[in-house]
Amino acid sequence: MSVLIHFSIFPLDKGKSVSPYVARAVKIIGESGLKFSLGPMGTSIEGEWDEVITLVGRCLQELKKDSDRVYMSITADYRRGGSGRIESKVESVESRI
Amino acid sequence: MSVLIHFSIFPLDKGKSVSPYVARAVKIIGESGLKFSLGPMGTSIEGEWDEVITLVGRCLQELKKDSDRVYMSITADYRRGGSGRIESKVESVESRI
Amino acid sequence: MSVLIHFSIFPLDKGKSVSPYVARAVKIIGESGLKFSLGPMGTSIEGEWDEVITLVGRCLQELKKDSDRVYMSITADYRRGGSGRIESKVESVESRI
Amino acid sequence: MSVLIHFSIFPLDKGKSVSPYVARAVKIIGESGLKFSLGPMGTSIEGEWDEVITLVGRCLQELKKDSDRVYMSITADYRRGGSGRIESKVESVESRI
Repeated sequence: MSVLIHFSIFPLDKGKSVSPYVARAVKIIGESGLKFSLGPMGTSIEGEWDEVITLVGRCLQELKKDSDRVYMSITADYRRGGSGRIESKVESVESRI
Repeated sequence: MSVLIHFSIFPLDKGKSVSPYVARAVKIIGESGLKFSLGPMGTSIEGEWDEVITLVGRCLQELKKDSDRVYMSITADYRRGGSGRIESKVESVESRI
Repeated sequence: MSVLIHFSIFPLDKGKSVSPYVARAVKIIGESGLKFSLGPMGTSIEGEWDEVITLVGRCLQELKKDSDRVYMSITADYRRGGSGRIESKVESVESRI
Repeated sequence: MSVLIHFSIFPLDKGKSVSPYVARAVKIIGESGLKFSLGPMGTSIEGEWDEVITLVGRCLQELKKDSDRVYMSITADYRRGGSGRIESKVESVESRI
């Protein structure tokens, strides 16, 4: 549970309404069993690096089925011994403001 | 209200616990009057481009006060005529899964 | 010259070949007088924060003319007193490998 | 060779001078055999998804050895049948400006 990522994925060849494609990726994330949190600009996912990045690869695999060009943005925050950070990072900031 | 950004900011010269610094940025965002949503890996903000990017600049200004190196990541989604997307983008995806 | 950004911009409603649109943004960057370096996944630009972000805004303005949806990704590295880093950062890494 | 990524990695717990750590990652990238291009804000790498993301994982593994917190930013551009894009994307833009 030492990595937290923020992940967004969308096709470039399907026009400006990409939510049906995003939804297919989010469905895969939801079925993965990993902790996740859906946001307006991407999905945060917590797990071990191999787990989260395998999941990202499966989302790309899914969108590749009918898209010729797919864009992804991933930011990752590894912290040794970190766990439950998908909640605790927000709480830690909120407690200070 | 045509731009939605995902924004993260943290100092590189303050060690691994950066939440006090993140909190100072989030406080500024919260006082801006713009719609925002705090997430585990950053804050989503909705507004006109000039509004959101001026706000980002104020966050950098705040952290520069006592940090010699500051990193920021911004992804921005402009949509003509878009409004209320900080809620509607999540709802649009959720309705499809 | 204290900020270095990596910047990419493209429309979502123009199909998978976006280089004509990217080129319009890069032309604006090239005419700005700021130091920049064109890469496969974006353009690095060095300047003061207000300079680089005003330039980013002008690129968005240009693409908005005929695109209804535009995506941008920006990572920014502020360093107090930094200058000439668009060359020196690469040299610093290369000298160590 | 269908994926092009822009990748940056650095520790958060080593102070503001991170180039020795970045260099360790770039060394691993250089020895991978994959096409890459070092830039001021990150390294562009071209390959199949599994290849490039395995390489990213090896860079994280290397920095984890002596860092308790590591940040990574990855943007990825998949294009069906794409190859040699690490050069051709820049050329395609340059030819238009």
